[in-house]
Amino acid sequence: MTETRRGLFITFEGIDGSGKTTQMHRLAARLREAGHEVLETYEPGGTPIGVQVRRILLDAANQELCATSELLLYFACRAQNVVQSILPALREGKIVLSDRFTDSTLVYQGVGRGLGTEVVLALDRICCQGLRPDLTLLVDIDLETSLARAHARNRTLRQADHAFSETRMDDQAADFHQRVRKAYLELAAGEPQRVTVVDGRGDVASVEQAVWNAVAVRLGKLHV
Amino acid sequence: MTETRRGLFITFEGIDGSGKTTQMHRLAARLREAGHEVLETYEPGGTPIGVQVRRILLDAANQELCATSELLLYFACRAQNVVQSILPALREGKIVLSDRFTDSTLVYQGVGRGLGTEVVLALDRICCQGLRPDLTLLVDIDLETSLARAHARNRTLRQADHAFSETRMDDQAADFHQRVRKAYLELAAGEPQRVTVVDGRGDVASVEQAVWNAVAVRLGKLHV
Repeated sequence: MTETRRGLFITFEGIDGSGKTTQMHRLAARLREAGHEVLETYEPGGTPIGVQVRRILLDAANQELCATSELLLYFACRAQNVVQSILPALREGKIVLSDRFTDSTLVYQGVGRGLGTEVVLALDRICCQGLRPDLTLLVDIDLETSLARAHARNRTLRQADHAFSETRMDDQAADFHQRVRKAYLELAAGEPQRVTVVDGRGDVASVEQAVWNAVAVRLGKLHV
Repeated sequence: MTETRRGLFITFEGIDGSGKTTQMHRLAARLREAGHEVLETYEPGGTPIGVQVRRILLDAANQELCATSELLLYFACRAQNVVQSILPALREGKIVLSDRFTDSTLVYQGVGRGLGTEVVLALDRICCQGLRPDLTLLVDIDLETSLARAHARNRTLRQADHAFSETRMDDQAADFHQRVRKAYLELAAGEPQRVTVVDGRGDVASVEQAVWNAVAVRLGKLHV
């Protein structure tokens, strides 16, 4: 953050049902009200090509997708999103908010699926051109709340007759989610300067305020 | 090739229009006539998931696909093909023929698109579980013949009203193809034990015989 003309890159992380997506939209609205230019993006997806790759990743029919191929598809989305969308916006001084980024791959594929964090970091170096989040908001909730919220959301999606199901990840065993949550918290403990843990169990308004407090500190540094 | 029960992995390489696909089918037929079990595969594709990724790679509408994302999509196909298709067949003692493999990525993306061969080799280590072709047949033709054949093929494809066009690569400038052909020949020069260069300018039957001669040597070693 030594270049004053560069924007700010903020990522939202957390297990399914943590409320991070809702919180990201609320933060975006609040930043825009305060006069900032904001780009909201998400993974996997974020670009037209990323959306095509996302369909493969989340199609419940693709049960045979191997762990390494899945890992590469996530990074293919990310490489495209970084080049086509995130870096140009940051160069224009925008605040970029992303619903998931490399931390998700570290905890889900690196730890959860047991591929190891080294291979994830190697792919990050290949794909992200050195881009790292200035701030990561880890919206943390306990596993029971996560699963209850995720299942409720998937029921709603099915009722809406979506073309594909987002349940593939949710069908994983509870111990997978437990490992992922633990990995997230360890990651936050290892990088306290970058990662802020927000308690996601409260009501939406109180979580929103906690997010805003963390972001306001960075915005203050940006504009000094 | 110390395990006698393991099959043989033979790849076909060459620039567009070299005739490698035709030659691979002919070799497969000849091997089957000789009593071998043969699996034919191709890249990008080879598996149901690979076919979905292939559509993204070859869709002419995806002009904005960045070089790194393209590279990862190729390796996502490959990782899936290795795990789901190639390694199981080799374990069963089959002869596996593949229309393109990592050498294609080395010369097209590593050299042609200038990403460097190091990153391609790093991804190969992540994706291929140490699998290397036992024999690679480089079907070599001059650039003029290549372009003439490729354009004729694409005209035919368009007449057949295919859902997507395979012309994206063919629309690249001639100097790209020149660099790729040169890279292929250098690769062959560096690994003469693995890579056999076959002159692809002759008629189909004479090229077929040259391919067969190269394969027969390896089959002899396999069954001694």
